[in-house]
Amino acid sequence: MKALSMSVNGLRLNERIQSMAEIGEIGLTGVCRLAHSPEDKEGVLQVKKWMDSIGLVTTIDHFGNLIGRMNGIANDEPVLMIGSHIDSQPYGGKYDGALGVLGALEVLQTLREQNIEPKRPIVLVAFADEEGSRFNKGLFGVRGMLGKLEEGELDRRDKNGMTRREALIEFGCDPEKFHESIYDPARIAAFLELHIEQGPVLESKNEPIGIVTGISGPLWMTVEIEGVAGHAGSVPMGMRQDALVGAAKVIVKLNELAQEIPKAPTVSTVGSLQVFPDSRNIIPEKVTFTVDLRDVDEARRDKIEYVLRQEIEKIANEHSLTYTISEDTRSEPRFCNENILHIMKEESEKMGLTPPELMSGPFHDSLEMSYVCDYGMIFVRSKDGISHNPKEYSSPEDIALGAELLYKTVYRMACQ
Amino acid sequence: MKALSMSVNGLRLNERIQSMAEIGEIGLTGVCRLAHSPEDKEGVLQVKKWMDSIGLVTTIDHFGNLIGRMNGIANDEPVLMIGSHIDSQPYGGKYDGALGVLGALEVLQTLREQNIEPKRPIVLVAFADEEGSRFNKGLFGVRGMLGKLEEGELDRRDKNGMTRREALIEFGCDPEKFHESIYDPARIAAFLELHIEQGPVLESKNEPIGIVTGISGPLWMTVEIEGVAGHAGSVPMGMRQDALVGAAKVIVKLNELAQEIPKAPTVSTVGSLQVFPDSRNIIPEKVTFTVDLRDVDEARRDKIEYVLRQEIEKIANEHSLTYTISEDTRSEPRFCNENILHIMKEESEKMGLTPPELMSGPFHDSLEMSYVCDYGMIFVRSKDGISHNPKEYSSPEDIALGAELLYKTVYRMACQ
Repeated sequence: MKALSMSVNGLRLNERIQSMAEIGEIGLTGVCRLAHSPEDKEGVLQVKKWMDSIGLVTTIDHFGNLIGRMNGIANDEPVLMIGSHIDSQPYGGKYDGALGVLGALEVLQTLREQNIEPKRPIVLVAFADEEGSRFNKGLFGVRGMLGKLEEGELDRRDKNGMTRREALIEFGCDPEKFHESIYDPARIAAFLELHIEQGPVLESKNEPIGIVTGISGPLWMTVEIEGVAGHAGSVPMGMRQDALVGAAKVIVKLNELAQEIPKAPTVSTVGSLQVFPDSRNIIPEKVTFTVDLRDVDEARRDKIEYVLRQEIEKIANEHSLTYTISEDTRSEPRFCNENILHIMKEESEKMGLTPPELMSGPFHDSLEMSYVCDYGMIFVRSKDGISHNPKEYSSPEDIALGAELLYKTVYRMACQ
Repeated sequence: MKALSMSVNGLRLNERIQSMAEIGEIGLTGVCRLAHSPEDKEGVLQVKKWMDSIGLVTTIDHFGNLIGRMNGIANDEPVLMIGSHIDSQPYGGKYDGALGVLGALEVLQTLREQNIEPKRPIVLVAFADEEGSRFNKGLFGVRGMLGKLEEGELDRRDKNGMTRREALIEFGCDPEKFHESIYDPARIAAFLELHIEQGPVLESKNEPIGIVTGISGPLWMTVEIEGVAGHAGSVPMGMRQDALVGAAKVIVKLNELAQEIPKAPTVSTVGSLQVFPDSRNIIPEKVTFTVDLRDVDEARRDKIEYVLRQEIEKIANEHSLTYTISEDTRSEPRFCNENILHIMKEESEKMGLTPPELMSGPFHDSLEMSYVCDYGMIFVRSKDGISHNPKEYSSPEDIALGAELLYKTVYRMACQ
């Protein structure tokens, strides 16, 4: 890799990330900034102060989104939107989300310092509640801004019984005025997001950054398998209807199915499973487990789902079990804009980099933006692929490279 | 089956079972009589009253065992001991245990009514805390009586924080006087127990009662498999170390192993399993599950255990997982006495019955007695094989037949 002359100030960016991490700090490296919480508010005010200091026009809307606008020469052109979120998981890390907000801030500050006035306006957003862990439903701020909230969302309660409505009011928002905070999608030209990878692919390829080709939204299902309980010592094997043996066979099968096509990026996961009655000497009567199935190729994902359903039927028959399958979420893959990909590839080549192209498994604010405008994403390598955990780590060097590519992409899209 | 002329009074026995079920009644058919509880005490006093009414010499010892003695002609001969327990599971049925105590009571009352004086003393015991659910350690009364309590047993606490010591004192016992309640094993000639099957074998063979050949004590292990957590959407299948996929393969394999030798009564069960962190979009980092493995043939059980350990090693290697296996209990099968079996077979033939011989999977008070004397057990058919549940049911007809065979066996062993 050739020596780089960087435009952005990597040191300043990394200092801001560490400084933000003190707000809601847990342990030495962790962060807990739950959506709409006092820590979240403190974080928003900190970022707002930095935005103000470089002359952005800032507002906090009624969804809790922090918006900072840099006017352009043609100030009524659709804007280039950039950003991410600063809320975190309850036992989270300091890079997820914050990197995207502070990286975008660094990009705008660099433009300012270089006296570059963008052709079109650039709007930096720190979206409220991307994570969704507090009220068990995420992408709140971006959905709110785009007029896509659902019935009853304000009545969702956190673990302490506080509703989203109460939390928003405490945060300083007014849910009665949501309509004032809707952002007309026609005014958004494109969206760019810098984010940590949250997976091990870049690390395994020894690459600091990657270019995202799309977000492969998951198919989420819940499977409930029911058999018959019985004493572990007194029911002969041939007479059993053991729900856990059935579930285990489904888990093994699902794992095989996702690997059947070599090199396909299909992933399948059973992440949560409960046994009833969960007693060592009672044959499991009921097992409930989740299925998470993702693929960039929706047709391939649907085919695996079809085969999985057939296998569950077969296994249930074999063990005289009954079952239900409920569908919780069915997202389609959302692909990044080809032009933006092209720009990112060109610019990273100029930087002497060869960033791999990769799909994003996790959601991001970009997912919602993809329905109203073109979007592009840059990933920064995650140590050991870990995220949503205090062990989350990306190196200052990798972070600077990610911000630099974001800067160059913004420059190409809004300043030329 | 030819018409039977019964010695015991089946109607009286069944009425007593229903009457006992009112003590600690839950719902319409369930029973909750936790060890040493006020309900347990009420049950003990009720049975004591019935014992007294037929002239038994009754005592409640310091372990909470209720003992009723019918003297024999040779009153210093080792006794024939009969009985079971009256404590229940928290969400239990009315037959488990109570049948054995009240069936034995019916046997003694029948002897009295027929003016039969036994040659040797017969001692009926309602053992304290067979179930073990309150303090998570069972067979308390019988172990106490035989001098086999372990260090620290009195300090075990129930869910409300009450120690076994406190519960015993509340019950009316004096733990300082345990030594007074030890029963010299040399004074016990044999032990007989009538019990519900708690399994589906007799029902599947359409037989009202069965003769137990032994108790196949379990091998209990806990397996902990550890992999690496990761986002369900961002870790490629080939890079995963999914603890649940590993555990599922072990569960499937264990299920196969127990069925490899056709007709062998081997049973294996994974009854309890926990996933960490148990989140739908996080690859399981750790899975803990129990293994319950039983066989009448200890060598065969040990061989299956050996193969299972090899398979766990293989599966762990295949998925880059680590694991630990801890052994919680390793019981050996305890076989019933051949002579007693022979008597039971002869007597049931005379009754026109052809009771199957079967091993008991569950523990019973008999298990502890087997270490100090010969023992025999009679099983009564359980509807749908259900026990430890309010749905537990055995018909009055089957119960009467079980008690009748117990009567005839007691007569042969103590009165001829």
